[in-house]
Amino acid sequence: MDDAQGKDLLDTAHEMADAAGAAILPFFRSAGLTEDNKLAGGYDPVTEADRAAEQAMRGVLARRRPKDAILGEEFGTKDGDSGLTWVLDPIDGTRGFVSGTPTWGVLIGLSDDTGVHMGMIDQPYTGERFWGGFGQAQMRGPMGTRPLTTRQTQRLPEAILFTTFPEVGSDAERAAFQAVAGRVKLVRYGMDCYAYALVAAGQVDLVIECGLHTYDVQGPIGVIQAAGGIVTNWQGGPAHMGGQVIAAANAALHAEALDILAGMSKC
Amino acid sequence: MDDAQGKDLLDTAHEMADAAGAAILPFFRSAGLTEDNKLAGGYDPVTEADRAAEQAMRGVLARRRPKDAILGEEFGTKDGDSGLTWVLDPIDGTRGFVSGTPTWGVLIGLSDDTGVHMGMIDQPYTGERFWGGFGQAQMRGPMGTRPLTTRQTQRLPEAILFTTFPEVGSDAERAAFQAVAGRVKLVRYGMDCYAYALVAAGQVDLVIECGLHTYDVQGPIGVIQAAGGIVTNWQGGPAHMGGQVIAAANAALHAEALDILAGMSKC
Repeated sequence: MDDAQGKDLLDTAHEMADAAGAAILPFFRSAGLTEDNKLAGGYDPVTEADRAAEQAMRGVLARRRPKDAILGEEFGTKDGDSGLTWVLDPIDGTRGFVSGTPTWGVLIGLSDDTGVHMGMIDQPYTGERFWGGFGQAQMRGPMGTRPLTTRQTQRLPEAILFTTFPEVGSDAERAAFQAVAGRVKLVRYGMDCYAYALVAAGQVDLVIECGLHTYDVQGPIGVIQAAGGIVTNWQGGPAHMGGQVIAAANAALHAEALDILAGMSKC
Repeated sequence: MDDAQGKDLLDTAHEMADAAGAAILPFFRSAGLTEDNKLAGGYDPVTEADRAAEQAMRGVLARRRPKDAILGEEFGTKDGDSGLTWVLDPIDGTRGFVSGTPTWGVLIGLSDDTGVHMGMIDQPYTGERFWGGFGQAQMRGPMGTRPLTTRQTQRLPEAILFTTFPEVGSDAERAAFQAVAGRVKLVRYGMDCYAYALVAAGQVDLVIECGLHTYDVQGPIGVIQAAGGIVTNWQGGPAHMGGQVIAAANAALHAEALDILAGMSKC
């Protein structure tokens, strides 16, 4: 892709995130959130905000990029013929959303057959946006616009590790996670997609999760890769389809954590 | 206390929080944070920001309220002869601070022999401030100024529970926490003092923690009480000296959770 196309794609992502944030914010911390249960017996609330935000993003794409395909959490797939697919999670972290924590985010990824080319993580309540791709890796927020660069922490005993739930998947997956967690300096929970933004921003070193969907991970992959980090599955293969995911600040740390995860976990 | 004195005390707290935030923000997410280990072998980082913020708050008190006593996390006690004590935690949630999460806060409490009269929780990065006392219960932030009112959730199965670490204290304390956690709709982690602000703001229902210090809890108590909630220890007694703390949105929920905690836990 040439520079002009890259700029158009980045501009499109910013316009999508703006539209999604405007659709979501009136619902955030409002009384009477509408919650459905997508999984019978589970707790996976989907709000009016989720649907409104994905529709707003699809509206931008219909106008600016009608030939691109779309994969969205709420409204599924739309075919395209450009070879590019936009992967959308209008509110990643719905449990955080219904709890009022500003840890949820709008996730936008752009991929083709070769992988993820761009990603964006937007937190409209705090006014923070993290994006990477086409030569850019930046964030903007309360302290202005800054470059994103991952940390150079070289060993697990100096690393900060995040995951969203301490329960972490199956027994085998939990044991593998705990084997890494037991070697790091600090483990923290509950940050949803914001944890991936913190890896890109050079604030933390690792995020290890499992059970992710394609739309949960492509936005974060684009941001972290552009900032110098590495995102794979727990066997070191591509993570852009979701599943077991490790995001690491650099190659040395990725290798040390993967050595533990790959030996202890099976899909 | 009369209205004029209440106003002066609230104004003083706002000025203190402004000064603390200005002292802290240049250090937040900066490279090369200075971390000491207060507890040998533990992980309790104290940053330059922590010390600078408490000094800034003490400076405001020296000028505006020289007769009041002070209890601060960093610089200990200062005697007074007004009967009032300011209780200060310049950065509550230092692990969140060093991880770049906007879950830490500046905590300010004001108490006398009868209990806590005012509290403030300030998150300078997101620009959110929550305060309560002397007839006020309010927050201001990205969506403007709003009243604080706790939720009316009446039963544990409908409640959202927060705590900072899933490890939660001793074996007995952890078992008691888990007995409550097993009955609620949703448990979330990692929010530091921000969780108490969310109780006051009517976003979540319960925070249950243990091992707290006086300076960890007096700010939250002031805010939550003013918003209609209840904060006690796990036996239903006063919580303003710290220890095992439960913050609940209302009396019904407090009673149901306390019934479990009090029976299963001993100090």
